[in-house]
Amino acid sequence: MNTNSIFQAAQEAFLFYKNLSGKEKGDFLEKIAEILESRREEIVPLAVRESNLPEGRIQGELGRTTGQIRLFANLVKEGSWVEASIDPSLPDRSPLPRADIRRFLSPLGPVVVFGASNFPLAFSTAGGDTISALAAGCPVIYKAHPAHLETSRRVANCIQQALIACSLPSGLFTHVEGGIAEGQALVQHPLAKAVAFTGSQAGGMALFQLANQRKEPIPVFAEMGSVNPIFCFPNKLSKEREALAKAFIASLTLGVGQFCTNPGLIFVPASQAKAFEASLVAELQGIATAPMLHPGIAQAYYDAIQVMEAQEELRWIKVSDPKHLLNGSTALAEIQVADWLKDKQFQKEVFGAFALMVVYQDVADLVEVAKQLQGQLTITLWAEPEELQSQLYLINLLEEKCGRILFKGVPTGVEVGHAMQHGGPFPSTTAVQSTSVGAYAIKRFARPLAFQDMPHSLLPDALQDHNPLGIWRQVNGIVTK
Amino acid sequence: MNTNSIFQAAQEAFLFYKNLSGKEKGDFLEKIAEILESRREEIVPLAVRESNLPEGRIQGELGRTTGQIRLFANLVKEGSWVEASIDPSLPDRSPLPRADIRRFLSPLGPVVVFGASNFPLAFSTAGGDTISALAAGCPVIYKAHPAHLETSRRVANCIQQALIACSLPSGLFTHVEGGIAEGQALVQHPLAKAVAFTGSQAGGMALFQLANQRKEPIPVFAEMGSVNPIFCFPNKLSKEREALAKAFIASLTLGVGQFCTNPGLIFVPASQAKAFEASLVAELQGIATAPMLHPGIAQAYYDAIQVMEAQEELRWIKVSDPKHLLNGSTALAEIQVADWLKDKQFQKEVFGAFALMVVYQDVADLVEVAKQLQGQLTITLWAEPEELQSQLYLINLLEEKCGRILFKGVPTGVEVGHAMQHGGPFPSTTAVQSTSVGAYAIKRFARPLAFQDMPHSLLPDALQDHNPLGIWRQVNGIVTK
Repeated sequence: MNTNSIFQAAQEAFLFYKNLSGKEKGDFLEKIAEILESRREEIVPLAVRESNLPEGRIQGELGRTTGQIRLFANLVKEGSWVEASIDPSLPDRSPLPRADIRRFLSPLGPVVVFGASNFPLAFSTAGGDTISALAAGCPVIYKAHPAHLETSRRVANCIQQALIACSLPSGLFTHVEGGIAEGQALVQHPLAKAVAFTGSQAGGMALFQLANQRKEPIPVFAEMGSVNPIFCFPNKLSKEREALAKAFIASLTLGVGQFCTNPGLIFVPASQAKAFEASLVAELQGIATAPMLHPGIAQAYYDAIQVMEAQEELRWIKVSDPKHLLNGSTALAEIQVADWLKDKQFQKEVFGAFALMVVYQDVADLVEVAKQLQGQLTITLWAEPEELQSQLYLINLLEEKCGRILFKGVPTGVEVGHAMQHGGPFPSTTAVQSTSVGAYAIKRFARPLAFQDMPHSLLPDALQDHNPLGIWRQVNGIVTK
Repeated sequence: MNTNSIFQAAQEAFLFYKNLSGKEKGDFLEKIAEILESRREEIVPLAVRESNLPEGRIQGELGRTTGQIRLFANLVKEGSWVEASIDPSLPDRSPLPRADIRRFLSPLGPVVVFGASNFPLAFSTAGGDTISALAAGCPVIYKAHPAHLETSRRVANCIQQALIACSLPSGLFTHVEGGIAEGQALVQHPLAKAVAFTGSQAGGMALFQLANQRKEPIPVFAEMGSVNPIFCFPNKLSKEREALAKAFIASLTLGVGQFCTNPGLIFVPASQAKAFEASLVAELQGIATAPMLHPGIAQAYYDAIQVMEAQEELRWIKVSDPKHLLNGSTALAEIQVADWLKDKQFQKEVFGAFALMVVYQDVADLVEVAKQLQGQLTITLWAEPEELQSQLYLINLLEEKCGRILFKGVPTGVEVGHAMQHGGPFPSTTAVQSTSVGAYAIKRFARPLAFQDMPHSLLPDALQDHNPLGIWRQVNGIVTK
């Protein structure tokens, strides 16, 4: 099948599918979840084999995936997400009458999705990007991740089964295999209207540039990870040193450090650096090595650590010999804040269980850190309430550098809910105004469309006078049901 | 003042201003409107002189500008625009507790605004882009349009007076004069977080490419105009030929054709082409020439008509000698649909009172037209209700090619309201998911930001438990006040 026929089929499917009701779209999504669950025993072992991730994790990830699908199914069944807004005509307004204007969010068209290596289910074939695009009303052309191709094929087959069960056109979802050239061809096709991607900085930026160089540029929602700094304040750290060390190491090494929200930077006051380091080292004893997702990722991790090892500003707390590094062992180094501030390379993400402990002299140092910090998915503050009260300016600065700011816990474990924001300023994403997790992720694949003086019988249900869908809307700017 | 100090001041102002209440921001905006009105007699004659537009139009535009400012003032005073969403913690959830997560829209940071030549007030210094950015909480660095520099200075002074009256930092608004190099330097400054632009395709695309080539790419909201096709259906046209000809010519020649929503394409059935042409010619008798905005625009109009005159596919209905063209006279040509379909150049906007009447043989031709049509701000259908009933597929296709679809009236005269969409697919804009007119325009300058387990005393008012602002929010995904 060639790219052109894939997009022609997607476009025709789109023109039909976009006009289906939220109930019909929701039923389709639920059918995907149902089939995925029914084939759990077939899919889980495959994903385990292809990702090197433990079975418990993959079992949980399948549940997360179906939970996510049902969140979007409910969202589109309820229907208010389209932000319907109605300004009725004012025929007697002076000096000029007002036309009847009604706006809602309408799907963009065919979306190209690139799956992530680190979540073979939840951020892949039937993951958040695919499902939120389908929920919005967009067909998906899914470029399978070569690292878990067989898992991807089976999940794609679940979606295709759901299409048949719901009598929907097969062009709504296409599973494409191949390498970089195949992916580029998808992004470059004139009928593609958006791109979603989860992965590396290099991969995301290549797609972003490609999409902007098209004759018709299209939005790229690339989530490219970040170093997710944690700021430890003196009082908090002295009170809870061991618990915090434990939480940090657990978050750092979870899934062999292969998470977008993996904390790769931790800021520690000099007065407690030694003690905290000792706690970290103690915690690390209990962490077993585990294979990374695939040999390419292990090699990249190894190479990145080699580059770091060449930096004389670092003092190593723990770094294993190459053999262990290639088997996903943890690496930890210390750097002084003055050195860290000198070079942006100390902000670069190393994908895997690597972190820099940055030793600061005074909390005042952190203002300069905040100013120089690049965009992050998350920033975490570990502080006593009274320590925060004196740091309002710092918090203010840090808010500008992330999509989610935490005051407890660790950044890994991204909740799939209504209020979640999983995105952030560049370089963590190419689209600071979007999220790739949670209900709001659907907004990436829709755009406002207004109808002026449209005959009532032709208006979409969401915009009809008597509100047949019973959704929340604005009428003359007032929220109403 | 150099670019660096402008942005440093803007950034410091931002860190203060973003945390002000909606009431304080709204008061500031209202103060701008009040001062602008109080200086009406000083500003209107200047704008008339610098734009060649008639006084009545500029008087109206000042009213439109202050009306627009008050719309945004009311929007931020009411406060629900931040889309607050709260997922409270579930400490007892199994297998894992849920953290408390709260999200709202937070301003992007300093915004660079480029004013339009064709609206010296409503799309310029205190126009929709500046005001919606300030409303969102962003400082504005405004690059004055050289065509109406003195008007721009006075309006900038109104904003500066309002800053003083409200005791706000001067860095919130900076008026920058200069040429292309000065504009580029603003877009390239690392502290700039977004760009808004209204103008030509070439200008918008230059900024778009520049912004994407930055180390940190930033969004560009460029509204670059379009040809705003009108589709005439046979029955409608035969019933209302003269009224429609009158409406079309009035819209085409309004403001010497210098509107983004100026209808530059009209599709007419062959059976009525002759008769409609006669009506158009009759209507044109009553249209006086008038000077264009400035000599550069007149020259560009003249040059574009020369290029069109070289196309042998066109048959001219009306084209004046060069002297009149340079004085803003109307030009009208006919082309057969088969010829029109052959070349995208017949979709190119000519800024000024130029239109192509495209003669089609059968309504079925319009499906191919719709497929080949580029993105538009608006598309208008003039059809009897029963003619529409048989054209649902065509309407479906046309919806994908515009931001606003009209079934009555003309595309010019963009209402400033809650439901308005003034934007559209590329090449009409670089940001299909945005509007540059209406309340929704504020969303361009904000991004979602989530707080996880933030101490309640530090939460923004919009996200506090007891809803002190009384705004519409979502709690666990349910809309509530």
